[in-house]
Amino acid sequence: MLNFEYHNPVRIVFGKGSIEKLARLVPDGRVLMTYGGGSIRRNGVYDQVMDALKGREVIEFGGIEPNPTYETCMRAVEITKKESVAFLLAVGGGSVIDGTKFIAAASRYTGGDPWEILSMHAEVREAVPLGVVLTLPATGSEMNTFAVISRSETREKLPFSSPHVAPRFSILDPETTFSLPERYLRNGIVDAFVHVMEQFATYDVDTPLQDRLAVSIAETLVEIAPMVFSNPPDYNTRATFMWCATQALNGSISCGVVQDWSTHMIGHELTAFFGLDHGESLAVVLPGVWRHQIQEKSEKLALLGKRIWGISGVSARDAADRCIEATEGFFRSLGMKTRLGEYGIEGNEIDMVVDRFRERGTVLGERQDIGPGEIREILLSRL
Amino acid sequence: MLNFEYHNPVRIVFGKGSIEKLARLVPDGRVLMTYGGGSIRRNGVYDQVMDALKGREVIEFGGIEPNPTYETCMRAVEITKKESVAFLLAVGGGSVIDGTKFIAAASRYTGGDPWEILSMHAEVREAVPLGVVLTLPATGSEMNTFAVISRSETREKLPFSSPHVAPRFSILDPETTFSLPERYLRNGIVDAFVHVMEQFATYDVDTPLQDRLAVSIAETLVEIAPMVFSNPPDYNTRATFMWCATQALNGSISCGVVQDWSTHMIGHELTAFFGLDHGESLAVVLPGVWRHQIQEKSEKLALLGKRIWGISGVSARDAADRCIEATEGFFRSLGMKTRLGEYGIEGNEIDMVVDRFRERGTVLGERQDIGPGEIREILLSRL
Repeated sequence: MLNFEYHNPVRIVFGKGSIEKLARLVPDGRVLMTYGGGSIRRNGVYDQVMDALKGREVIEFGGIEPNPTYETCMRAVEITKKESVAFLLAVGGGSVIDGTKFIAAASRYTGGDPWEILSMHAEVREAVPLGVVLTLPATGSEMNTFAVISRSETREKLPFSSPHVAPRFSILDPETTFSLPERYLRNGIVDAFVHVMEQFATYDVDTPLQDRLAVSIAETLVEIAPMVFSNPPDYNTRATFMWCATQALNGSISCGVVQDWSTHMIGHELTAFFGLDHGESLAVVLPGVWRHQIQEKSEKLALLGKRIWGISGVSARDAADRCIEATEGFFRSLGMKTRLGEYGIEGNEIDMVVDRFRERGTVLGERQDIGPGEIREILLSRL
Repeated sequence: MLNFEYHNPVRIVFGKGSIEKLARLVPDGRVLMTYGGGSIRRNGVYDQVMDALKGREVIEFGGIEPNPTYETCMRAVEITKKESVAFLLAVGGGSVIDGTKFIAAASRYTGGDPWEILSMHAEVREAVPLGVVLTLPATGSEMNTFAVISRSETREKLPFSSPHVAPRFSILDPETTFSLPERYLRNGIVDAFVHVMEQFATYDVDTPLQDRLAVSIAETLVEIAPMVFSNPPDYNTRATFMWCATQALNGSISCGVVQDWSTHMIGHELTAFFGLDHGESLAVVLPGVWRHQIQEKSEKLALLGKRIWGISGVSARDAADRCIEATEGFFRSLGMKTRLGEYGIEGNEIDMVVDRFRERGTVLGERQDIGPGEIREILLSRL
């Protein structure tokens, strides 16, 4: 087991009817409420939030898009500064939360252009405190310090992390997910599943507890996936889905293990260049990364195959191979495409993605052995 | 799934060599370092702590006993107040940590006799901040808000909980466990295992993720138990044991489930009256509570039996029955006694324990149906 530090002070308030607890959770002062395309106005969440904040001074900032952009966030930063906003309340899914984390950090950034937080890993020394009302189980952003922001102008999508942007609280009411379209549910399941894999499917450093915890989340996602789409929605299924997605990326399963975020890093570029949804990009890339790195990952993939897909009686290498097939089959069973060609992306478009990694000098992988050449091989294998 | 709130801000610093990080973790001001019988002087932990705190003003308070007493803690409270101690550093196992939590709360208690925190559930409004260097995996106290304190005078053993006594940090270095005697290791394994069970083996409210997470911890404890006693000790085994014990009672597996702490509550009285170690008391009581409540618990016990003990092909009731046998067998395989008679406790001594529950009007169990009469039946079944 590797040495590690774990600290996650986010307060989770979980269950039906929890939004009314905002009244005691949001501190005094002016609130900027951030949200996305307006679905919260149609599904009743907006009204619940406003009821809970009755008598408080609330400014609204809607229109944070999927893959939240620097450009949009900077408009909110202006309002936050000008109106002396004391607290940011993100109401939505991972994009709204990520955007709000960037708004929180950028509003107190004194170093120059806040884009530096993303492009130069400039240190975040403070941030406006923020809270969350989650409406979409997927990214885990509601219980961690990470955010990913895009820049339309340059077609970039970059992550940052700071303890200062950990939400003070996150309200998780499974009923807020009842009106989600299938596409969002599908993306959410894949995103949560792949989060688990980036922290599990690496070389082994003797961590049987962490392995079991990771497999537990993945197995539960696979078990409930068919029921997630049921209509009318089942409360307990949605509750389990929501808690799986949060646990998948709250840091608990990464304690002491080797991680490999290659699939996410390559996937981000597919979103930036070709507009794939985040979940869609992961379903395309994961099988490619796994097959390319099967030597390193065969032990864990064989374990996953045995526990989740019932693969036994073959060599670790064969089991790993079948596990990759079964995992891609799982994605497809959700109605998810897993090939670049299915999105109309052709071989000659891959090099601009590879060039981006070359320019940045990025090397990925648990052994830091996935460079531009390997990324090219992986993407070609996914045509 | 039940509604829940989860908030655990304890910073975990895990791994070999971590004690030196005390230098950055302990805030400025006078430190009261609390410890137990002095084993830390023999195994090098004392020296590591003192090296890390070089140049700081440190007062020592040793002699916190297993089942820490109100009487001992109150002597430390006096020092804490008189010397304007700014930070408490608990170096030891659950008893030292629990004692230090009480010292922290009692030192700032303004309501009267701090015993009221235990006897009357008097509210803890503030506490001296505290940190932990853990040397014994068992109670999980290093990552939660609970403590159990005994009073020699009246042979009482009572719990309290407050967010104000959550450690600011806990350092977990598996090497500090290398010199532990077998008895402590055995007690620790049983304590951690039973913590998981008090949060898992109850009636089902449709929580497949939490069930898997709980079983993961229990299964890992069972898997590593034989290796925990190896000599020389194996680092990764001790690391996994340590992380299992912390995860077993940091609140994560109790989210949204029904709990039943009957075994602990009855066990506490066996310690208070007859001096059994905490782990010893649990190994005696658990099989009795389970058999008495088999109707309620059969579904979860059957699941546990299937996943951990390989019991299948029989009815849920039979599987539950065999699971109880297998669990008692597991305790015995560690060298743990599981019968009151083995400790020389006889039938006529049981009534004074039962009377204690009757006087307090305590009713236990996930359905609140274990009163004094039922406790008597359970204890008689464990002669």
